Amino acid sequence: MADDELARTPEPPYYAVIFTSHRTGGDNGYAAMSDRMVALAAAQPGCLGVESARDSGIGITVSYWRDEQSIADWRAHAEHTIARETGRAEWYRDFAVRVAKVERAYGFSA
Amino acid sequence: MADDELARTPEPPYYAVIFTSHRTGGDNGYAAMSDRMVALAAAQPGCLGVESARDSGIGITVSYWRDEQSIADWRAHAEHTIARETGRAEWYRDFAVRVAKVERAYGFSA
Repeated sequence: MADDELARTPEPPYYAVIFTSHRTGGDNGYAAMSDRMVALAAAQPGCLGVESARDSGIGITVSYWRDEQSIADWRAHAEHTIARETGRAEWYRDFAVRVAKVERAYGFSA
Repeated sequence: MADDELARTPEPPYYAVIFTSHRTGGDNGYAAMSDRMVALAAAQPGCLGVESARDSGIGITVSYWRDEQSIADWRAHAEHTIARETGRAEWYRDFAVRVAKVERAYGFSA
């Protein structure tokens, strides 16, 4: 689940899938599906964490993965496939997906 | 500026800097600095776009860059350096920075 903690990823390299979107108006089942997809993604083999934020402008979800195969397996997941199709038909005005290889990372904690 | 549009990036490869954070309480000059940094980043040579969202949980800002040198130049920018130092001292409870090479991307528009 995206429990509002920062993802505790291992040392790079690993992969990030950056999903940015604008919603259509109304919920239409979106909130429940979104929570379910984050939980389901986080439970997939090779998933290293999920971070998600949405404000009045855009939504950004970044999921982190051990390798390309883990991303491909999640993409092929039946429930995820249905959610993606509904997303195009109902929930999103537009979106972008970027798959990136994390090369370095650092953090700060007060 | 992050004008709530999705970034119009060119064909990969290019770089993404993924900044995820939790705020401390109160504003303490954060909102003005944040807007200024997004505008300043977007105006740097090699910056391909900035996307940002913050909700009650975490904040996520993703900036896109032509190459590693552009990222290094932005990191060395004097005003950005001051903002980062103030961020550690005042604005952020914790944060993570990940530098990633975007390998593929696709989008959807209704």
